[in-house]
Amino acid sequence: MKIGKVYLVGSGPGDPELITLKALKLLRKADVIVYDRLIPKSILKLIPSKSKKIYVGKFPGKHKIPQEKINEILINEALKGKKVVRLKNGDPFLFSRGGEEAQELRKAGIPFEIVPGVPSAIAVPAYAGIPITHRDYSSSIAIVTGHESQAKPNSRVKWDKLVNSVDTLIVLMGVKKLKNILKCLIEGGLSYKTKIAIIENGTTKNQKLS
Amino acid sequence: MKIGKVYLVGSGPGDPELITLKALKLLRKADVIVYDRLIPKSILKLIPSKSKKIYVGKFPGKHKIPQEKINEILINEALKGKKVVRLKNGDPFLFSRGGEEAQELRKAGIPFEIVPGVPSAIAVPAYAGIPITHRDYSSSIAIVTGHESQAKPNSRVKWDKLVNSVDTLIVLMGVKKLKNILKCLIEGGLSYKTKIAIIENGTTKNQKLS
Repeated sequence: MKIGKVYLVGSGPGDPELITLKALKLLRKADVIVYDRLIPKSILKLIPSKSKKIYVGKFPGKHKIPQEKINEILINEALKGKKVVRLKNGDPFLFSRGGEEAQELRKAGIPFEIVPGVPSAIAVPAYAGIPITHRDYSSSIAIVTGHESQAKPNSRVKWDKLVNSVDTLIVLMGVKKLKNILKCLIEGGLSYKTKIAIIENGTTKNQKLS
Repeated sequence: MKIGKVYLVGSGPGDPELITLKALKLLRKADVIVYDRLIPKSILKLIPSKSKKIYVGKFPGKHKIPQEKINEILINEALKGKKVVRLKNGDPFLFSRGGEEAQELRKAGIPFEIVPGVPSAIAVPAYAGIPITHRDYSSSIAIVTGHESQAKPNSRVKWDKLVNSVDTLIVLMGVKKLKNILKCLIEGGLSYKTKIAIIENGTTKNQKLS
């Protein structure tokens, strides 16, 4: 049987209007859609009812499906000849483990394609009215994950060095570790006068800015 | 007369399939589209022929239209009651002077809205097969403009500090100043073994990777 293909697709940051034409076309013609917790309902609604949907996110109170299992699902569906969309929030190569999935697909000899999406890191500040660069104020940005923290022995985010190297710092998924992140940044030399915006549920109806 | 509205819209990185639904809808119903040099023909084709198109890029051998003039066009068209799309390559708030245009529109009392796009900085490496983050190798990225260089006395990009603060460094519009940028990075401590990809005309038919 002919091998199928896997598309690693970014859904954009939340607002379903910010999905790309390419992503929408693929969602409409895919045989199987593999998606996780962060994909909003308004985007899932774009999937035709006849398509097979596989949820690989965390169920409340249950363990997360391990990445190896997700890779296995993608490979097995493609081996059955299916056109598979692996749908990810934002962009598939920006803190979304798309790189690992691409590696496993290559190892297994499965054809795949990357479909970039509008990243939350860029769109969420924009919806909150914040230009992340500006000719007069910012000519460099950094995007880091807030999941890691200095407390974690193997953390690779260099909070102290980031403070003085870029004009705008964007921390993803940082709300839970906010105190710790701010402590690391201030220890690294961040001025108490620095302006900070905290945005939750960005680009959706539940967006919260503080 | 009722004031119109200006939409600062990202067209995505080049591939017309990577435009968002929202951007496409706006292109189709705008009265006026103000666009510059980097917008590919395949995206301009999406604009209905009846719409007014205003080119504000550089003509070969001529000077660039100053930013003040562009702001003036946006404001005047909106004051005429028009629905204006200011179309920008990639994302309007990422090195695209969208922040400045938003400020001027606010000063002039013109309603406006930001429509984020897929940034070249993210999509171009993806189309070249490069994950910019990876659980095992990179948990931080920086995006900087290559237009500025250490040679420029008022440069704000801190090349030396960037070297040790992030795992992946993405330099936009860096081809012309490549030698100088590499010199600054190596002086800042960049290892000669660091892997570098140079991508031109990313996501288009003319994409060139070296």
